[in-house]
Amino acid sequence: MFESIYETMITKLPTPIFDKLAIIGIGLIGSSLARALRTAGVVRQISLYDMREDVRVRASELQLGEVCGDIGTAVQNADCVIVCVPVGASEAVAKAIAPHLKAGALVSDVGSVKGAVEKLMRPHLPQNVEFIGGHPVAGTEYSGPDAGFATLFEGRWSILTPPENANQDYVNILKVLWESVGAKVELMTTEHHDLVLAITSHLPHLIAYTTVGTADNLAKVTESEVIQYSAGGFRDFTRLAASDPTMWRDVFLHNKDAVLEMLGRFSEDLSALQRAIRYGEGDVLFDHFTHTRAIRRSIVQVESVKE
Amino acid sequence: MFESIYETMITKLPTPIFDKLAIIGIGLIGSSLARALRTAGVVRQISLYDMREDVRVRASELQLGEVCGDIGTAVQNADCVIVCVPVGASEAVAKAIAPHLKAGALVSDVGSVKGAVEKLMRPHLPQNVEFIGGHPVAGTEYSGPDAGFATLFEGRWSILTPPENANQDYVNILKVLWESVGAKVELMTTEHHDLVLAITSHLPHLIAYTTVGTADNLAKVTESEVIQYSAGGFRDFTRLAASDPTMWRDVFLHNKDAVLEMLGRFSEDLSALQRAIRYGEGDVLFDHFTHTRAIRRSIVQVESVKE
Repeated sequence: MFESIYETMITKLPTPIFDKLAIIGIGLIGSSLARALRTAGVVRQISLYDMREDVRVRASELQLGEVCGDIGTAVQNADCVIVCVPVGASEAVAKAIAPHLKAGALVSDVGSVKGAVEKLMRPHLPQNVEFIGGHPVAGTEYSGPDAGFATLFEGRWSILTPPENANQDYVNILKVLWESVGAKVELMTTEHHDLVLAITSHLPHLIAYTTVGTADNLAKVTESEVIQYSAGGFRDFTRLAASDPTMWRDVFLHNKDAVLEMLGRFSEDLSALQRAIRYGEGDVLFDHFTHTRAIRRSIVQVESVKE
Repeated sequence: MFESIYETMITKLPTPIFDKLAIIGIGLIGSSLARALRTAGVVRQISLYDMREDVRVRASELQLGEVCGDIGTAVQNADCVIVCVPVGASEAVAKAIAPHLKAGALVSDVGSVKGAVEKLMRPHLPQNVEFIGGHPVAGTEYSGPDAGFATLFEGRWSILTPPENANQDYVNILKVLWESVGAKVELMTTEHHDLVLAITSHLPHLIAYTTVGTADNLAKVTESEVIQYSAGGFRDFTRLAASDPTMWRDVFLHNKDAVLEMLGRFSEDLSALQRAIRYGEGDVLFDHFTHTRAIRRSIVQVESVKE
């Protein structure tokens, strides 16, 4: 089904999809998108801007596209603007690009929170541009323009959260854009996105950050021992706990309600298992562990079917 | 340094190191050890026993060694017995093998908890055999004789926890045995082992088991959505949460004090971050996340130096 929709869309659309596409924020995601779009060859011109001068210099060296010295020049005449900044910076970016946007332009983003981004950006954008939130569920623990790579989105999900009154043509063209870099696209409301990601991504990251911090605070176990024996399980947490601090601070501050809700449920469930350990209730532990094993098998199964 | 100690030891010892070595319990670890020892060629004869008949049949088919129909035959005349069963089964195994052990035999194990195992096994073993606990920090989320492979221990740590009065020759020979299958060996007390593993392995597993369970209990997010978007972080937890339920039930029941201590610390730390999210204290989050990122870098650095 995915293939057939893709083929239908791509044949309906002119190539290149966009004459000019602007990427604001040249970190892991922005620089990967620039690389991937160039490889896909679906955009004629890519302009880029980052608020940090050293990042702009590096992006030029990496030849990621036309790196602009100011944000206005970057978005001027762009048919599409993809904002790739930490969620907390999205309001300032919306204000900065608004006066320079072309009528009829499509503005999207890649933030891990969608409700807050829409509320922060949409009011500042002109009525004659379309805003559709987006979130490629892809990343690594590395940051910056050097960390990006063209295949980051291949086989990964990209979630779009069009507002209720969204223009369907714009939704479709954004879908094709993500499919052109290898992503699979799903549509949902901002509210549902923020709930799904709270459990599948935000809670795991917060817990990983906590665990790694707890380990580091121990007096009786040295840091070198923690590192030495991390293969016993701890290591799986450290990748998440090495993710970009600015990005994740903003995620937690801007998806507060859903994250606190998931944290409440997690803490209750942890207390139940803790109690079972304290009172030696082996059956409670065994039943829980057997059930979670089945969930992993579903994930591995889905992935092996995909390949 | 590792190399030179290894070379010193191996030249001092006769090859094969043991004439007969018995493996009790033919799961992931036991079957991997049988495969690895055969590849290393340091043991003349390997006998195996598992309480499950289907496992014994499979071990024979896999030609892991001389599979025995009863535990007594397996350990009879063995110079070394490695018990590879869930920690909760170690007392029963000690009782069962005791009458059949050869005078001067070395008995060891591979359990993830060392204090409890020593207390469960040592009192039942004859005075004329040496008991030294062991724990190879290696594994996968799969179980059973088919899951094992000869390279499981390569480059991984194997921790030995000799009692205070241990015979140094036996400690050395056990060290060489693990080094012969590619492991790096470290010695520590049972108490320290149980504390180090509580934070590096037991706590991460419990938290992963909890998180995966919490996700599964949500009504508003479907299981297929959790699976679909697991790449956002959740996936890293599911590998741990798919580990063997019997083994892990026993770990938590037998390392109760250290696990509850770590859980208490973890819960306090989580509450602090939860509070920072609720009150929008971005700096607290940012500082914490920056610090944990540095710890990951240490781990990756240590690993890249090793290679």
